[in-house]
Amino acid sequence: MFIIGELINGMYKDIGEAIKKKDKAPIQKYALEQLKAGADALDVNCGPVSRQPVSDIQWLVQTIQEVTNKPLVLDSSKPEVIESGLKVIKNKAIINSTTADVEKLNILVPLAKQYQAGLIGLTISAKGIPQNKDQRLELAATIVSYCSEQGFSPENLYLDPIVLPVNVAQAQMRDILESIHEFKIISEPSPKTVVGLSNVSQGSCLRSLINRTFLTMAVAFGLDAAIIDPQDKELMDALITSELILNKQIYCDSYLEAYRKK
Amino acid sequence: MFIIGELINGMYKDIGEAIKKKDKAPIQKYALEQLKAGADALDVNCGPVSRQPVSDIQWLVQTIQEVTNKPLVLDSSKPEVIESGLKVIKNKAIINSTTADVEKLNILVPLAKQYQAGLIGLTISAKGIPQNKDQRLELAATIVSYCSEQGFSPENLYLDPIVLPVNVAQAQMRDILESIHEFKIISEPSPKTVVGLSNVSQGSCLRSLINRTFLTMAVAFGLDAAIIDPQDKELMDALITSELILNKQIYCDSYLEAYRKK
Repeated sequence: MFIIGELINGMYKDIGEAIKKKDKAPIQKYALEQLKAGADALDVNCGPVSRQPVSDIQWLVQTIQEVTNKPLVLDSSKPEVIESGLKVIKNKAIINSTTADVEKLNILVPLAKQYQAGLIGLTISAKGIPQNKDQRLELAATIVSYCSEQGFSPENLYLDPIVLPVNVAQAQMRDILESIHEFKIISEPSPKTVVGLSNVSQGSCLRSLINRTFLTMAVAFGLDAAIIDPQDKELMDALITSELILNKQIYCDSYLEAYRKK
Repeated sequence: MFIIGELINGMYKDIGEAIKKKDKAPIQKYALEQLKAGADALDVNCGPVSRQPVSDIQWLVQTIQEVTNKPLVLDSSKPEVIESGLKVIKNKAIINSTTADVEKLNILVPLAKQYQAGLIGLTISAKGIPQNKDQRLELAATIVSYCSEQGFSPENLYLDPIVLPVNVAQAQMRDILESIHEFKIISEPSPKTVVGLSNVSQGSCLRSLINRTFLTMAVAFGLDAAIIDPQDKELMDALITSELILNKQIYCDSYLEAYRKK
Protein backbone atom coordinates (compact mmCIF):
# COMPACT_ATOMS: atom_id res chain seq x y z
CA MET A 1 0.00 0.00 0.00
CA PHE A 2 1.21 3.43 -0.95
CA ILE A 3 0.44 5.53 2.13
CA ILE A 4 -0.13 9.25 1.69
CA GLY A 5 -0.09 11.20 4.95
CA GLU A 6 -3.01 13.63 5.13
CA LEU A 7 -2.02 15.88 8.00
CA ILE A 8 -0.36 18.80 6.19
CA ASN A 9 -3.60 20.54 5.41
CA GLY A 10 -4.42 24.15 6.22
CA MET A 11 -7.84 23.08 7.50
CA TYR A 12 -6.09 21.78 10.62
CA LYS A 13 -5.68 24.67 13.02
CA ASP A 14 -1.95 24.41 13.73
CA ILE A 15 -1.08 23.90 10.07
CA GLY A 16 -3.32 26.82 9.08
CA GLU A 17 -1.58 29.03 11.65
CA ALA A 18 1.85 27.90 10.50
CA ILE A 19 1.00 28.73 6.88
CA LYS A 20 -0.27 32.15 7.89
CA LYS A 21 2.85 32.94 9.96
CA LYS A 22 5.23 31.16 7.58
CA ASP A 23 6.44 29.15 10.53
CA LYS A 24 8.36 26.18 9.15
CA ALA A 25 8.72 24.18 12.35
CA PRO A 26 5.19 22.72 12.65
CA ILE A 27 5.10 21.84 8.95
CA GLN A 28 8.44 20.03 9.08
CA LYS A 29 7.45 18.33 12.32
CA TYR A 30 4.26 16.93 10.78
CA ALA A 31 6.20 15.89 7.68
CA LEU A 32 8.77 13.92 9.63
CA GLU A 33 6.28 12.42 12.07
CA GLN A 34 4.07 11.11 9.29
CA LEU A 35 7.02 9.60 7.46
CA LYS A 36 8.21 7.99 10.68
CA ALA A 37 4.72 6.54 11.21
CA GLY A 38 4.82 4.88 7.80
CA ALA A 39 3.80 7.44 5.15
CA ASP A 40 5.34 6.91 1.72
CA ALA A 41 4.28 10.36 0.53
CA LEU A 42 2.79 13.55 1.97
CA ASP A 43 -0.34 15.35 0.91
CA VAL A 44 0.16 19.12 0.77
CA ASN A 45 -2.95 21.26 0.98
CA CYS A 46 -3.06 24.98 1.82
CA GLY A 47 -6.59 24.63 3.11
CA PRO A 48 -9.48 27.07 3.09
CA VAL A 49 -7.69 29.69 5.23
CA SER A 50 -5.04 30.40 2.65
CA ARG A 51 -5.66 33.68 0.83
CA GLN A 52 -2.66 33.24 -1.48
CA PRO A 53 -2.69 29.52 -2.22
CA VAL A 54 -0.58 30.03 -5.35
CA SER A 55 2.33 31.29 -3.28
CA ASP A 56 1.49 29.36 -0.11
CA ILE A 57 1.81 26.01 -1.84
CA GLN A 58 5.28 26.96 -3.04
CA TRP A 59 6.28 27.84 0.50
CA LEU A 60 4.83 24.55 1.77
CA VAL A 61 6.61 22.48 -0.88
CA GLN A 62 9.93 24.20 -0.28
CA THR A 63 9.53 23.89 3.49
CA ILE A 64 8.84 20.16 3.29
CA GLN A 65 11.58 19.51 0.75
CA GLU A 66 14.09 20.86 3.26
CA VAL A 67 13.47 17.78 5.41
CA THR A 68 12.55 14.96 3.01
CA ASN A 69 12.84 13.83 -0.58
CA LYS A 70 9.73 11.65 -0.43
CA PRO A 71 6.93 12.23 -2.96
CA LEU A 72 4.60 15.16 -2.40
CA VAL A 73 0.94 15.09 -3.32
CA LEU A 74 -0.15 18.56 -4.41
CA ASP A 75 -3.72 18.89 -3.25
CA SER A 76 -5.93 21.61 -4.65
CA SER A 77 -9.07 21.88 -6.75
CA LYS A 78 -7.45 24.85 -8.53
CA PRO A 79 -5.13 23.91 -11.41
CA GLU A 80 -3.18 27.17 -11.00
CA VAL A 81 -2.27 26.18 -7.44
CA ILE A 82 -1.12 22.73 -8.63
CA GLU A 83 0.96 24.29 -11.39
CA SER A 84 2.53 26.74 -8.98
CA GLY A 85 3.54 23.89 -6.67
CA LEU A 86 4.98 21.90 -9.55
CA LYS A 87 7.22 24.83 -10.50
CA VAL A 88 9.22 24.50 -7.28
CA ILE A 89 9.01 20.75 -6.69
CA LYS A 90 12.16 18.66 -6.73
CA ASN A 91 10.71 15.52 -5.16
CA LYS A 92 8.47 13.16 -7.09
CA ALA A 93 5.07 14.84 -7.49
CA ILE A 94 1.51 13.52 -7.57
CA ILE A 95 -1.27 15.86 -8.66
CA ASN A 96 -4.36 15.72 -6.42
CA SER A 97 -6.58 15.95 -8.40
CA THR A 98 -8.36 16.09 -11.71
CA THR A 99 -12.03 15.34 -12.19
CA ALA A 100 -13.53 13.64 -15.25
CA ASP A 101 -14.28 17.07 -16.77
CA VAL A 102 -12.47 17.79 -20.03
CA GLU A 103 -11.59 21.34 -18.98
CA LYS A 104 -9.63 19.97 -16.02
CA LEU A 105 -8.13 17.05 -17.90
CA ASN A 106 -6.99 19.48 -20.63
CA ILE A 107 -4.87 21.34 -18.10
CA LEU A 108 -3.78 18.67 -15.63
CA VAL A 109 -2.85 15.73 -17.84
CA PRO A 110 -0.32 17.80 -19.84
CA LEU A 111 1.05 19.18 -16.54
CA ALA A 112 1.41 15.66 -15.16
CA LYS A 113 3.27 14.63 -18.30
CA GLN A 114 5.49 17.69 -18.28
CA TYR A 115 6.53 17.17 -14.65
CA GLN A 116 6.52 13.35 -14.79
CA ALA A 117 4.00 13.46 -11.99
CA GLY A 118 1.39 10.96 -10.88
CA LEU A 119 -2.22 12.06 -11.23
CA ILE A 120 -5.18 11.35 -8.98
CA GLY A 121 -8.41 11.19 -10.99
CA LEU A 122 -11.62 11.68 -9.04
CA THR A 123 -14.59 9.87 -10.54
CA ILE A 124 -16.71 12.98 -10.28
CA SER A 125 -17.69 15.63 -12.78
CA ALA A 126 -19.41 18.99 -13.04
CA LYS A 127 -22.64 17.00 -13.15
CA GLY A 128 -22.07 15.98 -9.54
CA ILE A 129 -21.15 13.01 -7.39
CA PRO A 130 -21.79 9.56 -8.91
CA GLN A 131 -24.73 7.76 -7.38
CA ASN A 132 -23.80 4.18 -8.19
CA LYS A 133 -21.11 1.83 -9.49
CA ASP A 134 -21.97 2.27 -13.16
CA GLN A 135 -21.63 6.03 -12.95
CA ARG A 136 -18.29 5.65 -11.19
CA LEU A 137 -17.08 3.25 -13.85
CA GLU A 138 -18.20 5.56 -16.66
CA LEU A 139 -16.32 8.49 -15.15
CA ALA A 140 -13.27 6.31 -14.57
CA ALA A 141 -13.36 5.18 -18.20
CA THR A 142 -13.55 8.81 -19.34
CA ILE A 143 -10.41 9.65 -17.38
CA VAL A 144 -8.50 6.53 -18.49
CA SER A 145 -9.44 7.09 -22.16
CA TYR A 146 -8.34 10.70 -22.04
CA CYS A 147 -5.03 9.76 -20.44
CA SER A 148 -4.42 6.99 -22.98
CA GLU A 149 -5.10 9.33 -25.88
CA GLN A 150 -2.60 11.79 -24.45
CA GLY A 151 0.04 9.11 -23.92
CA PHE A 152 -0.19 9.31 -20.13
CA SER A 153 0.22 5.78 -18.75
CA PRO A 154 -2.57 4.39 -16.53
CA GLU A 155 0.19 3.18 -14.21
CA ASN A 156 0.73 6.80 -13.18
CA LEU A 157 -2.98 7.38 -12.74
CA TYR A 158 -4.70 6.88 -9.36
CA LEU A 159 -8.46 6.54 -9.72
CA ASP A 160 -10.50 7.61 -6.70
CA PRO A 161 -14.04 6.17 -6.40
CA ILE A 162 -15.07 9.11 -4.14
CA VAL A 163 -15.58 7.83 -0.64
CA LEU A 164 -18.75 9.26 0.88
CA PRO A 165 -19.62 9.44 4.59
CA VAL A 166 -21.23 6.24 5.82
CA ASN A 167 -23.73 8.24 7.87
CA VAL A 168 -25.21 9.88 4.78
CA ALA A 169 -24.53 7.47 1.89
CA GLN A 170 -24.64 4.06 3.54
CA ALA A 171 -26.31 2.42 0.55
CA GLN A 172 -23.36 3.40 -1.67
CA MET A 173 -20.55 1.88 0.39
CA ARG A 174 -20.62 -1.51 -1.33
CA ASP A 175 -20.59 0.15 -4.76
CA ILE A 176 -17.62 2.28 -3.73
CA LEU A 177 -15.70 -0.81 -2.59
CA GLU A 178 -16.57 -2.84 -5.66
CA SER A 179 -15.57 0.09 -7.87
CA ILE A 180 -12.02 -0.25 -6.58
CA HIS A 181 -11.93 -3.77 -8.00
CA GLU A 182 -13.58 -2.76 -11.27
CA PHE A 183 -11.26 0.20 -11.87
CA LYS A 184 -8.35 -2.24 -11.88
CA ILE A 185 -9.71 -4.08 -14.92
CA ILE A 186 -10.51 -1.00 -17.02
CA SER A 187 -7.24 -1.12 -18.92
CA GLU A 188 -4.06 -3.05 -19.35
CA PRO A 189 -1.78 -2.02 -17.69
CA SER A 190 -4.18 -1.30 -14.81
CA PRO A 191 -4.66 2.15 -13.40
CA LYS A 192 -3.90 2.45 -9.70
CA THR A 193 -6.63 3.12 -7.15
CA VAL A 194 -6.69 5.54 -4.22
CA VAL A 195 -9.15 6.68 -1.59
CA GLY A 196 -9.30 9.72 0.64
CA LEU A 197 -10.16 7.58 3.63
CA SER A 198 -11.25 9.92 6.37
CA ASN A 199 -14.31 11.08 4.46
CA VAL A 200 -15.97 7.72 5.20
CA SER A 201 -16.34 8.66 8.86
CA GLN A 202 -17.04 12.39 8.42
CA GLY A 203 -19.66 13.33 10.99
CA SER A 204 -19.61 9.92 12.66
CA CYS A 205 -18.70 9.23 16.26
CA LEU A 206 -16.41 6.20 16.03
CA ARG A 207 -14.17 7.62 13.33
CA SER A 208 -11.07 5.49 13.77
CA LEU A 209 -13.05 2.23 13.95
CA ILE A 210 -15.05 3.10 10.83
CA ASN A 211 -11.91 4.24 9.00
CA ARG A 212 -9.95 1.07 9.67
CA THR A 213 -12.87 -1.23 8.91
CA PHE A 214 -13.50 0.46 5.57
CA LEU A 215 -9.79 0.48 4.75
CA THR A 216 -9.47 -3.25 5.50
CA MET A 217 -12.32 -3.94 3.09
CA ALA A 218 -10.84 -1.63 0.46
CA VAL A 219 -7.52 -3.48 0.69
CA ALA A 220 -9.43 -6.73 0.10
CA PHE A 221 -10.88 -5.17 -3.06
CA GLY A 222 -7.42 -4.31 -4.38
CA LEU A 223 -6.75 -0.74 -3.23
CA ASP A 224 -3.27 0.53 -4.16
CA ALA A 225 -2.97 3.80 -2.26
CA ALA A 226 -4.73 5.67 0.51
CA ILE A 227 -4.67 9.19 1.90
CA ILE A 228 -4.79 8.58 5.63
CA ASP A 229 -3.53 9.65 9.03
CA PRO A 230 -0.51 7.37 9.46
CA GLN A 231 -0.31 8.37 13.11
CA ASP A 232 -3.53 6.45 13.82
CA LYS A 233 -1.77 3.37 15.17
CA GLU A 234 -4.81 1.10 15.10
CA LEU A 235 -5.46 2.10 11.50
CA MET A 236 -1.89 1.25 10.57
CA ASP A 237 -2.10 -2.07 12.47
CA ALA A 238 -5.23 -2.96 10.48
CA LEU A 239 -3.58 -1.92 7.22
CA ILE A 240 -0.42 -3.91 7.85
CA THR A 241 -2.45 -6.96 8.89
CA SER A 242 -4.65 -6.62 5.78
CA GLU A 243 -1.54 -6.73 3.63
CA LEU A 244 -0.27 -9.70 5.63
CA ILE A 245 -3.47 -11.63 4.98
CA LEU A 246 -3.27 -10.83 1.26
CA ASN A 247 0.30 -12.14 1.22
CA LYS A 248 1.86 -8.79 0.39
CA GLN A 249 4.18 -9.06 3.35
CA ILE A 250 5.75 -12.24 4.66
CA TYR A 251 4.49 -13.50 8.01
CA CYS A 252 6.70 -13.37 11.05
CA ASP A 253 5.61 -13.15 14.67
CA SER A 254 6.69 -9.51 14.83
CA TYR A 255 5.27 -8.56 11.42
CA LEU A 256 3.95 -5.20 12.64
CA GLU A 257 7.39 -4.11 13.79
CA ALA A 258 9.03 -5.61 10.71
CA TYR A 259 6.75 -3.54 8.47
CA ARG A 260 7.34 -0.38 10.44
CA LYS A 261 11.12 -0.80 10.31
CA LYS A 262 11.05 -1.11 6.52
CA MET B 1 -24.15 -12.13 10.34
CA PHE B 2 -25.16 -15.31 12.05
CA ILE B 3 -22.75 -15.53 14.99
CA ILE B 4 -21.94 -18.95 16.42
CA GLY B 5 -20.19 -18.81 19.78
CA GLU B 6 -17.20 -21.17 19.86
CA LEU B 7 -16.44 -21.37 23.56
CA ILE B 8 -18.30 -24.53 24.61
CA ASN B 9 -15.58 -26.87 23.49
CA GLY B 10 -13.98 -29.56 25.60
CA MET B 11 -10.56 -28.50 24.37
CA TYR B 12 -10.82 -25.51 26.70
CA LYS B 13 -9.67 -26.58 30.12
CA ASP B 14 -12.63 -25.42 32.20
CA ILE B 15 -15.16 -26.82 29.74
CA GLY B 16 -13.24 -30.11 29.57
CA GLU B 17 -13.28 -30.33 33.37
CA ALA B 18 -16.97 -29.52 33.54
CA ILE B 19 -17.79 -32.26 31.04
CA LYS B 20 -15.72 -34.76 33.01
CA LYS B 21 -17.39 -33.85 36.32
CA LYS B 22 -20.83 -33.30 34.77
CA ASP B 23 -20.80 -29.85 36.34
CA LYS B 24 -23.53 -27.85 34.66
CA ALA B 25 -22.66 -24.40 36.04
CA PRO B 26 -19.63 -23.55 33.85
CA ILE B 27 -21.39 -24.79 30.70
CA GLN B 28 -24.49 -22.73 31.36
CA LYS B 29 -22.39 -19.72 32.30
CA TYR B 30 -20.49 -19.85 28.98
CA ALA B 31 -23.76 -20.37 27.13
CA LEU B 32 -25.40 -17.30 28.64
CA GLU B 33 -22.31 -15.11 28.43
CA GLN B 34 -21.85 -15.83 24.74
CA LEU B 35 -25.49 -15.11 24.00
CA LYS B 36 -25.27 -11.88 25.95
CA ALA B 37 -22.18 -10.90 23.95
CA GLY B 38 -24.07 -11.32 20.69
CA ALA B 39 -24.03 -15.00 19.71
CA ASP B 40 -27.05 -16.18 17.71
CA ALA B 41 -26.18 -19.85 18.22
CA LEU B 42 -23.77 -21.94 20.27
CA ASP B 43 -21.24 -24.47 19.03
CA VAL B 44 -21.22 -27.62 21.18
CA ASN B 45 -18.10 -29.75 21.04
CA CYS B 46 -17.08 -32.42 23.58
CA GLY B 47 -13.44 -31.94 22.66
CA PRO B 48 -10.58 -34.42 22.65
CA VAL B 49 -10.80 -35.19 26.39
CA SER B 50 -14.23 -36.78 26.17
CA ARG B 51 -14.07 -40.60 26.34
CA GLN B 52 -17.83 -41.01 25.85
CA PRO B 53 -18.65 -38.30 23.32
CA VAL B 54 -21.87 -40.08 22.34
CA SER B 55 -23.29 -39.60 25.82
CA ASP B 56 -21.35 -36.43 26.66
CA ILE B 57 -22.91 -34.51 23.77
CA GLN B 58 -26.36 -35.44 25.03
CA TRP B 59 -25.48 -34.13 28.47
CA LEU B 60 -24.09 -30.92 26.93
CA VAL B 61 -27.15 -30.35 24.76
CA GLN B 62 -29.54 -30.98 27.65
CA THR B 63 -27.49 -28.76 29.97
CA ILE B 64 -27.49 -25.87 27.51
CA GLN B 65 -31.18 -26.30 26.63
CA GLU B 66 -32.03 -25.69 30.27
CA VAL B 67 -30.93 -22.07 29.87
CA THR B 68 -31.62 -21.14 26.24
CA ASN B 69 -33.71 -22.06 23.24
CA LYS B 70 -31.23 -20.64 20.72
CA PRO B 71 -29.86 -22.88 17.96
CA LEU B 72 -27.14 -25.36 18.87
CA VAL B 73 -24.36 -26.34 16.48
CA LEU B 74 -23.43 -29.97 17.08
CA ASP B 75 -19.72 -30.14 16.43
CA SER B 76 -18.04 -33.49 15.87
CA SER B 77 -16.24 -35.29 13.08
CA LYS B 78 -18.06 -38.48 14.16
CA PRO B 79 -21.55 -38.89 12.68
CA GLU B 80 -22.60 -41.10 15.61
CA VAL B 81 -21.88 -38.23 18.02
CA ILE B 82 -23.93 -35.85 15.87
CA GLU B 83 -26.82 -38.31 15.70
CA SER B 84 -26.72 -38.81 19.44
CA GLY B 85 -26.94 -35.06 20.02
CA LEU B 86 -29.83 -34.76 17.58
CA LYS B 87 -31.80 -37.36 19.50
CA VAL B 88 -32.13 -35.06 22.52
CA ILE B 89 -32.19 -31.67 20.85
CA LYS B 90 -35.27 -29.47 21.15
CA ASN B 91 -33.70 -26.23 19.91
CA LYS B 92 -32.98 -25.64 16.24
CA ALA B 93 -29.93 -27.73 15.29
CA ILE B 94 -27.05 -27.22 12.90
CA ILE B 95 -24.78 -30.14 12.10
CA ASN B 96 -21.07 -29.29 12.18
CA SER B 97 -20.01 -30.87 9.89
CA THR B 98 -19.94 -33.00 6.80
CA THR B 99 -17.05 -33.18 4.37
CA ALA B 100 -17.41 -33.62 0.61
CA ASP B 101 -16.97 -37.41 1.02
CA VAL B 102 -19.95 -39.46 -0.07
CA GLU B 103 -19.75 -41.74 2.98
CA LYS B 104 -20.29 -38.73 5.24
CA LEU B 105 -22.89 -37.08 3.03
CA ASN B 106 -24.80 -40.39 2.93
CA ILE B 107 -25.23 -40.28 6.69
CA LEU B 108 -25.41 -36.58 7.52
CA VAL B 109 -27.67 -35.19 4.80
CA PRO B 110 -30.51 -37.60 5.67
CA LEU B 111 -30.00 -36.77 9.36
CA ALA B 112 -30.17 -33.05 8.63
CA LYS B 113 -33.40 -33.60 6.69
CA GLN B 114 -34.90 -35.82 9.38
CA TYR B 115 -34.20 -33.30 12.15
CA GLN B 116 -34.81 -30.18 10.00
CA ALA B 117 -31.29 -29.15 10.88
CA GLY B 118 -28.84 -26.87 9.14
CA LEU B 119 -25.67 -28.49 7.82
CA ILE B 120 -22.13 -27.13 7.66
CA GLY B 121 -20.27 -28.53 4.66
CA LEU B 122 -16.49 -28.38 4.83
CA THR B 123 -14.84 -28.11 1.43
CA ILE B 124 -12.43 -30.87 2.31
CA SER B 125 -12.35 -34.56 1.51
CA ALA B 126 -10.47 -37.73 2.33
CA LYS B 127 -7.97 -36.61 -0.32
CA GLY B 128 -6.95 -33.75 1.96
CA ILE B 129 -7.19 -30.00 2.32
CA PRO B 130 -7.82 -28.03 -0.88
CA GLN B 131 -4.80 -26.12 -2.13
CA ASN B 132 -6.51 -23.45 -4.19
CA LYS B 133 -9.80 -21.80 -5.13
CA ASP B 134 -10.68 -24.26 -7.90
CA GLN B 135 -10.34 -27.23 -5.57
CA ARG B 136 -12.51 -25.48 -2.99
CA LEU B 137 -15.13 -24.73 -5.60
CA GLU B 138 -15.12 -28.31 -6.87
CA LEU B 139 -15.66 -29.69 -3.36
CA ALA B 140 -18.37 -27.11 -2.72
CA ALA B 141 -20.14 -28.12 -5.92
CA THR B 142 -19.96 -31.78 -4.87
CA ILE B 143 -21.70 -30.97 -1.60
CA VAL B 144 -24.32 -28.69 -3.18
CA SER B 145 -25.12 -31.25 -5.91
CA TYR B 146 -25.50 -34.03 -3.38
CA CYS B 147 -27.81 -31.91 -1.24
CA SER B 148 -29.91 -30.87 -4.24
CA GLU B 149 -30.32 -34.47 -5.36
CA GLN B 150 -31.50 -35.38 -1.88
CA GLY B 151 -33.94 -32.48 -1.72
CA PHE B 152 -31.96 -30.66 0.96
CA SER B 153 -32.18 -26.92 0.24
CA PRO B 154 -28.91 -24.99 -0.21
CA GLU B 155 -30.42 -22.34 2.06
CA ASN B 156 -29.91 -24.73 4.97
CA LEU B 157 -26.35 -25.52 3.89
CA TYR B 158 -23.38 -23.54 5.22
CA LEU B 159 -20.29 -24.00 3.05
CA ASP B 160 -16.97 -23.57 4.81
CA PRO B 161 -13.93 -22.74 2.63
CA ILE B 162 -11.56 -24.12 5.34
CA VAL B 163 -9.68 -21.25 6.88
CA LEU B 164 -6.00 -22.09 7.26
CA PRO B 165 -3.50 -20.39 9.59
CA VAL B 166 -1.97 -17.30 7.99
CA ASN B 167 1.44 -18.23 9.36
CA VAL B 168 1.56 -21.48 7.37
CA ALA B 169 -0.72 -20.90 4.35
CA GLN B 170 -0.36 -17.21 3.64
CA ALA B 171 -0.52 -17.68 -0.12
CA GLN B 172 -3.98 -19.25 0.18
CA MET B 173 -5.70 -16.48 2.13
CA ARG B 174 -6.94 -14.58 -0.94
CA ASP B 175 -8.31 -17.80 -2.45
CA ILE B 176 -10.14 -18.58 0.78
CA LEU B 177 -11.72 -15.12 0.82
CA GLU B 178 -12.67 -15.20 -2.84
CA SER B 179 -14.15 -18.69 -2.38
CA ILE B 180 -16.70 -17.19 -0.01
CA HIS B 181 -17.95 -15.01 -2.85
CA GLU B 182 -17.88 -17.84 -5.38
CA PHE B 183 -19.76 -20.28 -3.16
CA LYS B 184 -22.66 -17.84 -3.13
CA ILE B 185 -23.13 -18.12 -6.89
CA ILE B 186 -22.96 -21.93 -7.09
CA SER B 187 -26.71 -22.35 -6.99
CA GLU B 188 -29.98 -20.50 -6.87
CA PRO B 189 -31.05 -20.17 -4.09
CA SER B 190 -27.53 -19.58 -2.77
CA PRO B 191 -25.95 -21.76 -0.15
CA LYS B 192 -24.87 -19.91 2.97
CA THR B 193 -21.20 -19.51 3.89
CA VAL B 194 -19.46 -19.95 7.22
CA VAL B 195 -15.91 -19.87 8.57
CA GLY B 196 -14.32 -21.23 11.69
CA LEU B 197 -12.49 -17.97 12.26
CA SER B 198 -9.94 -18.62 14.95
CA ASN B 199 -7.97 -21.04 12.82
CA VAL B 200 -6.66 -18.10 10.78
CA SER B 201 -4.51 -16.97 13.69
CA GLN B 202 -3.58 -20.41 15.05
CA GLY B 203 0.05 -20.21 16.17
CA SER B 204 0.29 -16.47 15.53
CA CYS B 205 1.07 -13.85 18.13
CA LEU B 206 -1.48 -11.12 17.41
CA ARG B 207 -4.48 -13.41 17.30
CA SER B 208 -7.30 -10.94 17.90
CA LEU B 209 -5.96 -8.42 15.37
CA ILE B 210 -5.52 -11.11 12.71
CA ASN B 211 -8.96 -12.57 13.47
CA ARG B 212 -10.81 -9.29 13.15
CA THR B 213 -8.94 -8.21 10.03
CA PHE B 214 -9.68 -11.49 8.29
CA LEU B 215 -13.32 -11.41 9.42
CA THR B 216 -13.78 -7.86 8.12
CA MET B 217 -12.50 -8.99 4.73
CA ALA B 218 -14.68 -12.11 4.79
CA VAL B 219 -17.74 -9.95 5.48
CA ALA B 220 -16.81 -7.84 2.45
CA PHE B 221 -16.78 -11.03 0.38
CA GLY B 222 -20.30 -11.94 1.51
CA LEU B 223 -19.83 -14.22 4.53
CA ASP B 224 -23.14 -15.27 6.17
CA ALA B 225 -22.05 -16.94 9.40
CA ALA B 226 -18.96 -17.26 11.56
CA ILE B 227 -17.88 -19.44 14.44
CA ILE B 228 -16.13 -16.96 16.69
CA ASP B 229 -15.50 -15.86 20.25
CA PRO B 230 -18.27 -13.28 20.73
CA GLN B 231 -16.63 -12.12 23.94
CA ASP B 232 -13.76 -10.63 21.94
CA LYS B 233 -15.11 -7.09 22.05
CA GLU B 234 -12.80 -5.67 19.39
CA LEU B 235 -13.76 -8.53 17.07
CA MET B 236 -17.43 -7.80 17.60
CA ASP B 237 -16.84 -4.04 17.08
CA ALA B 238 -15.15 -4.82 13.77
CA LEU B 239 -17.94 -7.19 12.76
CA ILE B 240 -20.71 -4.73 13.60
CA THR B 241 -18.89 -1.94 11.76
CA SER B 242 -18.36 -4.20 8.75
CA GLU B 243 -22.08 -4.81 8.59
CA LEU B 244 -22.70 -1.10 9.00
CA ILE B 245 -20.48 -0.29 6.04
CA LEU B 246 -22.26 -2.90 3.92
CA ASN B 247 -25.60 -1.32 4.84
CA LYS B 248 -26.85 -4.34 6.77
CA GLN B 249 -27.55 -2.19 9.78
CA ILE B 250 -28.79 1.38 9.75
CA TYR B 251 -26.33 4.03 10.86
CA CYS B 252 -26.84 5.86 14.09
CA ASP B 253 -24.18 7.46 16.27
CA SER B 254 -24.53 4.68 18.83
CA TYR B 255 -24.73 1.86 16.27
CA LEU B 256 -22.51 -0.47 18.34
CA GLU B 257 -24.83 -0.26 21.31
CA ALA B 258 -27.90 -0.44 19.09
CA TYR B 259 -26.65 -3.68 17.56
CA ARG B 260 -25.80 -5.17 20.93
CA LYS B 261 -29.22 -4.35 22.34
CA LYS B 262 -30.94 -6.11 19.45
